[in-house]
Amino acid sequence: MGRPMALNLVRAGHRLKVFDLESEAVAALVEAGAGAAGSAREAAADAAVVVSMLPASRHVEAAMLGPDGIIAGLKANTVVIDMSTIDPGTTRRLAAAVAERGCQMLDAPVSGSSIGARDGSLTIMAGGDPEVLEAQRDLLGAMGGNVVHCGAVGMGEVVKLCNNLVAGAAAAALAEAFTLALRLGADPRILFEVMSTSSGNCWALQTRPPVPGLVPSAPADSGFAPGFMVDLMHKDLSLVMAAASELRLALPMAAGAQQMYALASAQGHGREDFSAVFKVLQQERAEA
Amino acid sequence: MGRPMALNLVRAGHRLKVFDLESEAVAALVEAGAGAAGSAREAAADAAVVVSMLPASRHVEAAMLGPDGIIAGLKANTVVIDMSTIDPGTTRRLAAAVAERGCQMLDAPVSGSSIGARDGSLTIMAGGDPEVLEAQRDLLGAMGGNVVHCGAVGMGEVVKLCNNLVAGAAAAALAEAFTLALRLGADPRILFEVMSTSSGNCWALQTRPPVPGLVPSAPADSGFAPGFMVDLMHKDLSLVMAAASELRLALPMAAGAQQMYALASAQGHGREDFSAVFKVLQQERAEA
Amino acid sequence: MGRPMALNLVRAGHRLKVFDLESEAVAALVEAGAGAAGSAREAAADAAVVVSMLPASRHVEAAMLGPDGIIAGLKANTVVIDMSTIDPGTTRRLAAAVAERGCQMLDAPVSGSSIGARDGSLTIMAGGDPEVLEAQRDLLGAMGGNVVHCGAVGMGEVVKLCNNLVAGAAAAALAEAFTLALRLGADPRILFEVMSTSSGNCWALQTRPPVPGLVPSAPADSGFAPGFMVDLMHKDLSLVMAAASELRLALPMAAGAQQMYALASAQGHGREDFSAVFKVLQQERAEA
Amino acid sequence: MGRPMALNLVRAGHRLKVFDLESEAVAALVEAGAGAAGSAREAAADAAVVVSMLPASRHVEAAMLGPDGIIAGLKANTVVIDMSTIDPGTTRRLAAAVAERGCQMLDAPVSGSSIGARDGSLTIMAGGDPEVLEAQRDLLGAMGGNVVHCGAVGMGEVVKLCNNLVAGAAAAALAEAFTLALRLGADPRILFEVMSTSSGNCWALQTRPPVPGLVPSAPADSGFAPGFMVDLMHKDLSLVMAAASELRLALPMAAGAQQMYALASAQGHGREDFSAVFKVLQQERAEA
Repeated sequence: MGRPMALNLVRAGHRLKVFDLESEAVAALVEAGAGAAGSAREAAADAAVVVSMLPASRHVEAAMLGPDGIIAGLKANTVVIDMSTIDPGTTRRLAAAVAERGCQMLDAPVSGSSIGARDGSLTIMAGGDPEVLEAQRDLLGAMGGNVVHCGAVGMGEVVKLCNNLVAGAAAAALAEAFTLALRLGADPRILFEVMSTSSGNCWALQTRPPVPGLVPSAPADSGFAPGFMVDLMHKDLSLVMAAASELRLALPMAAGAQQMYALASAQGHGREDFSAVFKVLQQERAEA
Repeated sequence: MGRPMALNLVRAGHRLKVFDLESEAVAALVEAGAGAAGSAREAAADAAVVVSMLPASRHVEAAMLGPDGIIAGLKANTVVIDMSTIDPGTTRRLAAAVAERGCQMLDAPVSGSSIGARDGSLTIMAGGDPEVLEAQRDLLGAMGGNVVHCGAVGMGEVVKLCNNLVAGAAAAALAEAFTLALRLGADPRILFEVMSTSSGNCWALQTRPPVPGLVPSAPADSGFAPGFMVDLMHKDLSLVMAAASELRLALPMAAGAQQMYALASAQGHGREDFSAVFKVLQQERAEA
Repeated sequence: MGRPMALNLVRAGHRLKVFDLESEAVAALVEAGAGAAGSAREAAADAAVVVSMLPASRHVEAAMLGPDGIIAGLKANTVVIDMSTIDPGTTRRLAAAVAERGCQMLDAPVSGSSIGARDGSLTIMAGGDPEVLEAQRDLLGAMGGNVVHCGAVGMGEVVKLCNNLVAGAAAAALAEAFTLALRLGADPRILFEVMSTSSGNCWALQTRPPVPGLVPSAPADSGFAPGFMVDLMHKDLSLVMAAASELRLALPMAAGAQQMYALASAQGHGREDFSAVFKVLQQERAEA
Repeated sequence: MGRPMALNLVRAGHRLKVFDLESEAVAALVEAGAGAAGSAREAAADAAVVVSMLPASRHVEAAMLGPDGIIAGLKANTVVIDMSTIDPGTTRRLAAAVAERGCQMLDAPVSGSSIGARDGSLTIMAGGDPEVLEAQRDLLGAMGGNVVHCGAVGMGEVVKLCNNLVAGAAAAALAEAFTLALRLGADPRILFEVMSTSSGNCWALQTRPPVPGLVPSAPADSGFAPGFMVDLMHKDLSLVMAAASELRLALPMAAGAQQMYALASAQGHGREDFSAVFKVLQQERAEA
């Protein structure tokens, strides 16, 4: 997701110096007008604002804390915005390390598909000092039209994960509802219509029902092209469950949904839209 | 739910002859202008249309098939409308028994709370012959503003159960999301706002978030008064799981939700609104 | 399982009159020396003891209560022994109908594989009047070496289902343990040895670990030939969950295990030994 | 568990220098004859063998990698034995850091209750170089009678976690079986006897059935005094699930069991024996 987000910053007139472990990603942005840095540290050294977007906690930790990392390069009063979806505990630890350099950190994970990243319509859930956030609203606005202040640093991550818990569980339940309806002979269009005006209505029903022909441009209508991948939903639910484990908190629905996305991934659907969790329940019976 | 629905029929000018095993329920309707019958058989004997609304499959079977039951009293061409939520297989068996008497059956379970029953705003999911249904639209319309034809007899039950599968799972997931957010220090109002415009949006969020102060007249704001009771959600999910067992179909989210409502019921919340499933996760730690 | 059990009765010198909806099953027993009856009713008419062994509640109900069924044929003081695994509620209802004919019923479901049925080594869990049971110990002993009185009628079923709940859940957990161990690079023989003397020890580990080469004549060593089939384990767990639904009792482990055997069945392993639930977790990743 | 294990080392004639963040724990061992160190680093500085036993990965990381930690104090050729139960990935990273100092690490988590720690009857699952392990068999033997070599470093942790996955799931399933049996009116002694010789047999049944009066000195007979605590079982299942998340592996039974122990902990049973998971299902109905 990082590349289209950075492109939107370039288009909005921001001067960027970019770094990525894959030089191809850097080249694409340089072609669009960004400068290239030789390391995260170098990218951070001259910047007023540093933005990071990485797959998982361990990548953010390496990019922030490593000898050639962002924090090593920070000069005072730089604002660090981590837009990765990672666990809130790591976010708070990194924010403390950033603060030790006389800088401030916002966490600002995003919600929305890769399409949202391209057309700048992501929802951005930001945590941190409200004044620091206000000063960066224009910059964030170039990437996402809806920037919400969620509280202290880390709370952007918390709100995003809690939102995705429901999104992932509802989509998995939706897959079950359509599977059962089809097996019992119901017309999926009627199920869709009834649910749309009833207690089964949810975001996944309106954007990605698992059966084709119900909603314009649903992933099910184009071979489950994402959208938001099964493996990313599994990752977010894994972050939810890690936080719950730490708190000794029971979250049975989140745990069940995590297992279903793991099965979908194991069956080869990890890079399809997360509505493909439907396929886990559609196995052909190999034997009579 | 039967009493307010019958009252709406009386108010709409229909002539009713009513029977209930509890004489108190009959008395209330007689006071409103209905006639009383001494048995289900007697109630059915003179009727052009017979309407039943009962708690579970075994009650419907007894009321239909018993020696003093509806089917024993039917004259030819009577229309039998069962509005109970029961398993679709039982519905189909009863419809066959009704057909043997030269009559026709519709299944027409309802969606909506006890408030919906009172003010006639239920959604009615009807299965059966479309012409028979059309002829009864006025009568059904007196009980629910939204009457949807779902297919052959039994399909009203199928669509209702599939809808409630998602409703029950989403509400349970919502309870987990708010629990996790609160434990991690997030503001539930911000979570509500973000989810309302994001992938976590669902009917339960907009009508019954588990935390008070977010939505006007949510059950959480009035001690979890129903609404739709925990025990009814458990019953509907049990019907879902019975159908799935018969088909050897895996429905892990429905199974998980069923367990959560069972726990809520065991902890004394069976007659509260189903958003009270939240309380299962809020146990005080008795020990340090 | 009925045929080898009936054969053991013939071999023990009992005179049998047999009925089955499939004439082939009858023919095989006639060849071995049994007499044939034209219906369940006829088979019951002359008997001092009637033994039934059928797949599910609805079959037992039909064979007992139908117009050509066992109960219609009973003369007073006949003992009816139902060895089917069905739900305890149905058992109690049937026992009441048997009692109305002046007869007595025992429920006597069995535990053990098809091999146990052949060599007469089944465990028989019997419910009913203890004197009635004592009088039938010889007959039951021809089918199973271990006959246990479990309490009033229906308690045989209860004890069997509770036992199988643990058997099914433990075998599913064992499949997970070996899957995780293999993925993390552990030697399954060492895992087997450690678990055998530690807190992970269980019947499934000693009789049917999911990896070949650990235990003589484990199903995994012969293509998961049963043994006790996935679909039978699914059926028993479905009976457990139906009883739990009726009681509004949460049984999350049983519910989870039921889903895993349903997935195994959907993936074509329904007629393999229940240790094949392991395969649900072994899906090849179709994509990188 | 560390204190009784250290006491066994002292009794076996080993000279110990001990460190703990809680001075009370140190004092008790000093009284028994051990020397005291001012830090983990100091304790490690003179030792031929360093043994650590700590609650969780983060404690082991701090004790090993911190500025006053074990690794900072190591001289070449010291053997480091970590007996904590932590995630195998952390173990491997620590082993690499130990190797950089010219030393070698074994992981050696234990199985068995606090009683086993006291009387030296723990099972020790060791990973690492087999020659290094052989040289330490006497020392380990003072703490546990059964020392098993499980493979390369980290494999002790893997085998322990896989074993406990089954132990935890089986005990939770056992709680469900006894709950269902009691609710349906069965005699728990008969269930115990049948299961003991049938497919439901497992270690938890023989050592800690959840109902008193079945097994001598079961936790249920003494107010669920541990034994092995609910919170420790939750911790081990959390390690299992963290490893599964990393591998995108579905482990539904482990996930379900983890939720049950989390509920037990939330309800105040975290420090009781893990057979107290039974109580989650025994809630009194607060309302009719």
